[in-house]
Amino acid sequence: MFQSFEVTTHPEDGPPRLEELRDLMARIDVQALLVPRADAHQGEDVAPRDNRLAWLTGFTGSAGFAVVLPDIAGVFVDGRYRVQVKEQVAACYTPVDWPENMPGPWLAESMPTGGRLAFDPWLHTFHEIEALAEAGIVLVPSPNLIDVIWTDRPDAPAGAVTLHPLEQSGEASSLKRSRLAAQLREDGHSTAVLSQPASICWLLNIRGEDIARTPVVQAFALLHDDGRVALYSDTPDLMAMAPTLGPGITCFERDAFGEALAGLDGPVRVDRNSAPWAVSQILEATSVPIEYAPDICALPKAQKNETEISGSRAAHLRDGAAMCEFLAWLDVEAPKGRLTEIDVVTALEGFRRNTGLLRDISFETICGSGPNGAIVHYRVNKNSNRVISPGELLLVDSGGQYQDGTTDITRTIAVGEVQAEAKMCFTRVLQGMIAISRVRFPTGVTGRDLDALARMPLWLAGQDYDHGTGHGVGAYLGVHEGPQAISRRNNVPLRAGMILSNEPGYYREGAFGIRIENLIVTQNATDIPGGDGRAMLAFETLTWVPIDRRLIDLELLSADERRWLDSYHADVFDKIAPALSKPALDWLRDVTAAL
Amino acid sequence: MFQSFEVTTHPEDGPPRLEELRDLMARIDVQALLVPRADAHQGEDVAPRDNRLAWLTGFTGSAGFAVVLPDIAGVFVDGRYRVQVKEQVAACYTPVDWPENMPGPWLAESMPTGGRLAFDPWLHTFHEIEALAEAGIVLVPSPNLIDVIWTDRPDAPAGAVTLHPLEQSGEASSLKRSRLAAQLREDGHSTAVLSQPASICWLLNIRGEDIARTPVVQAFALLHDDGRVALYSDTPDLMAMAPTLGPGITCFERDAFGEALAGLDGPVRVDRNSAPWAVSQILEATSVPIEYAPDICALPKAQKNETEISGSRAAHLRDGAAMCEFLAWLDVEAPKGRLTEIDVVTALEGFRRNTGLLRDISFETICGSGPNGAIVHYRVNKNSNRVISPGELLLVDSGGQYQDGTTDITRTIAVGEVQAEAKMCFTRVLQGMIAISRVRFPTGVTGRDLDALARMPLWLAGQDYDHGTGHGVGAYLGVHEGPQAISRRNNVPLRAGMILSNEPGYYREGAFGIRIENLIVTQNATDIPGGDGRAMLAFETLTWVPIDRRLIDLELLSADERRWLDSYHADVFDKIAPALSKPALDWLRDVTAAL
Repeated sequence: MFQSFEVTTHPEDGPPRLEELRDLMARIDVQALLVPRADAHQGEDVAPRDNRLAWLTGFTGSAGFAVVLPDIAGVFVDGRYRVQVKEQVAACYTPVDWPENMPGPWLAESMPTGGRLAFDPWLHTFHEIEALAEAGIVLVPSPNLIDVIWTDRPDAPAGAVTLHPLEQSGEASSLKRSRLAAQLREDGHSTAVLSQPASICWLLNIRGEDIARTPVVQAFALLHDDGRVALYSDTPDLMAMAPTLGPGITCFERDAFGEALAGLDGPVRVDRNSAPWAVSQILEATSVPIEYAPDICALPKAQKNETEISGSRAAHLRDGAAMCEFLAWLDVEAPKGRLTEIDVVTALEGFRRNTGLLRDISFETICGSGPNGAIVHYRVNKNSNRVISPGELLLVDSGGQYQDGTTDITRTIAVGEVQAEAKMCFTRVLQGMIAISRVRFPTGVTGRDLDALARMPLWLAGQDYDHGTGHGVGAYLGVHEGPQAISRRNNVPLRAGMILSNEPGYYREGAFGIRIENLIVTQNATDIPGGDGRAMLAFETLTWVPIDRRLIDLELLSADERRWLDSYHADVFDKIAPALSKPALDWLRDVTAAL
Repeated sequence: MFQSFEVTTHPEDGPPRLEELRDLMARIDVQALLVPRADAHQGEDVAPRDNRLAWLTGFTGSAGFAVVLPDIAGVFVDGRYRVQVKEQVAACYTPVDWPENMPGPWLAESMPTGGRLAFDPWLHTFHEIEALAEAGIVLVPSPNLIDVIWTDRPDAPAGAVTLHPLEQSGEASSLKRSRLAAQLREDGHSTAVLSQPASICWLLNIRGEDIARTPVVQAFALLHDDGRVALYSDTPDLMAMAPTLGPGITCFERDAFGEALAGLDGPVRVDRNSAPWAVSQILEATSVPIEYAPDICALPKAQKNETEISGSRAAHLRDGAAMCEFLAWLDVEAPKGRLTEIDVVTALEGFRRNTGLLRDISFETICGSGPNGAIVHYRVNKNSNRVISPGELLLVDSGGQYQDGTTDITRTIAVGEVQAEAKMCFTRVLQGMIAISRVRFPTGVTGRDLDALARMPLWLAGQDYDHGTGHGVGAYLGVHEGPQAISRRNNVPLRAGMILSNEPGYYREGAFGIRIENLIVTQNATDIPGGDGRAMLAFETLTWVPIDRRLIDLELLSADERRWLDSYHADVFDKIAPALSKPALDWLRDVTAAL
């Protein structure tokens, strides 16, 4: 079982740790300390030894940070975690609404005059520290103070590293390296800093096990304009494998990274939004010219090739069959009123394991029944677990890591008969999800430009949801990847091969949560009969799992929407039926019948 | 008759004028000259004396510029004017596609090494000149060289200036000035430069006649943080009226503006996108601190108050009745196959004049039949005029300036029986226009976020249109105003009171053009029954004129869309019927019947 339901932090640990930290801060004369959730690679998940925020405060959310001062310790969390933080931290910590409150102005108000803010230069991006500097804060780079007092800190991860074969990657690492090297030469950059493990794994066609849920190895790398790659990592397997990865690929101890940076000629390409501030500091201190530009792997990695897309299709058929077995089982068991949320998560992981090919779940399954469904990033544990009762909605957001693809799917299921109001809300969410599924659009259009299509049916009813409509998804890499997204915050033109989620939702606090999510991949769609012959794009659906027809208010659907759903369900049956057990097949036939 | 159909420029004037200009350039040792369309106020229309681009080159479009070099003279025009420019300029001018080609890189390639580019510092914004400087061009501010050789240049406009009464403006100028002065103090700016006539007219509750189609007076102004306003204008009526406009309002000769700038203390608020480059130059030369920020009047002017909105409603009922008389007449006359485009424009202006309240048309009427409809900014003249034949579509985009409001409406009309393909395209355009009419959305949403809703029906068919979905509209001011727009280029959050056009279209070159345009005003819409109580906005429709039902393919409309249209037509009948002649009333009853 990958997922755990243990409560891993305890509010009572917070006060003594905070006291010890404040003693240390006083001894070295700093009046404030930044304690981020992130590690040096700015990923969404971190190794246990890097989970300093949870160790100090008890807060286990996937985003946030603490700012510790002599007489206040703020824990900054976004809208997803406002309830959770209150349950997880002791009274000595003050939850702060973020980004409504930004650390710069908050510090300017809370810090003693002349106060100095310490930060670990490896755990913050250039962009982050610049923003604080612009707010007038006196910043002091410092060795990590948490690590000084955290005496039983876990060891560095030392996961296995494996080759990601050509049958899955579709492009040899040597080709990837030579086309990026050509781009570096064209841009006049001599070297690119790579600090995101997913970028390095994509470039070298390797995968790792250093971080739960995301199959990456922890490393930094330098890509030179002749295609050579220098790796810096403490993962022994990577050190051993590097010489076999190709000519010009070498691996050094991670501690050698700083010195290597200082020895570069430049101009060095650095991503201000992901590279550690320390990278800029070292380059500046040694007068190496810096060119700030996005991670050079991010865009090519996001544009999956035909092999990766085929792999994703196969992974989704396999994962879809597991989901159908699960949903067929759920439709029998849930109405009995005895299942708990943990039972559901456990069963679902079991169905995915039964495929024999599950490498990991792609994130902690979100399984929220009734009012828990309205907590957008709800993770059930032994304390929060509840029995699912007839009349409730059950929201299950989950995914798998397979060697040929990463999946992410949400279905909202009616347990017994649910109220008409919930069905109307479900139908509006579905209409938005269908709009994104059907849309075609000219090249140049960004995720931002499409976001409103998913919200329009809810907007007309005075409703909305407070998250993006879709995020980028990797190819057996992170379930969240950039630069693509369907969101008002995203300005990146969509391109063929980009995999995205399509997941509008609706949440009524204390009552229910609804989300419907398919993965989609952007494809060229220029030759539309009767069209202008413009360069256009469209989304191909990857996810094939029934959408609960019991929750649809047919009066609200247009003829086109109804046609889309019937056609989707007919395709689900055709694609998934061959892989199912007899009971699941019978179930599938029923639930995919035309409306 | 406001509109003229004369051909006002002649290609044969171009060569001798160009030769004389090049002689002058050689004498003063400049190798290149910028000749903009804009005057010092960067408005869309200019006085005849400021129409230097047309005088030199013959090109009369509303946007574009020329760059004159010793051996090439480029006329830069955007997609709307690619056909027109070829007909209007002589062979000594080279049409250049803009913005595909930007003047910076084009000059870098075409200009002799070490060449100097002369420009009139009053006719270009700071933003424009900065872009050229960044491209590495050697820039030489210079007196206007066209004005040296243009010996019979018309006089400066000297139009009448009138008070815009409180019953129309809804807010006394003294209140506007004191609230903007408070904002200046809050922002730490001592003075704001106002270079846009519409801003000055709004602030002082005056209107002018210096420029055709836009009821403004030409002036610069300085608004001080105590509410005083200094005007700089050559319009005699403004000079005479200034002392009566309120305490602290004075008017000086326009020539005194530069000296006044040099004498300011600062920080001075300057809009880099509208103020002349000369303003920045003078302030910098005299060490007056500059703060670049948007025109301080732009946003408050765009948010119309209840009085202005009521005025707009009244203007639209009046204009709608004139449009209905026109359309009723057209439905009788056009099928006879004898009307020309000029006949139609003339008749329409006559119906508007019959209201007795028309101050001006709000822009040159676009009346394109058959293939002319596909030329987005087509203006008929005696050379291009053609007879409208049965079987064609007729696109008529027009508007009026009334003291209580500015109108802008497009209707596309079937003349006789038209082909099914045109009806399908018309219906998709209508669906997009209905989507914008119906949408509700949370505060914070921008015009960019809504743009795709209007395009989705066309996109699904592989079609699109190459212009924005809607522009801001003034209150008896410019028919195009910022900062609001429904466009992928617009990032301004929509706010209550903003008037916009809603005008998707579709153009098939050589065949037909379709556009359907209503004006809409943004209104608060928070209390939607069953909604979340979020702060939301919606659009109230201002325009009440039937949409040609003969062009609708009923199969394509959803039930919601059909309901919207029937309800719109029922409202049109109720609102407009009381103002119509008997024949028009009979016509209206027919064309507004439910589908």
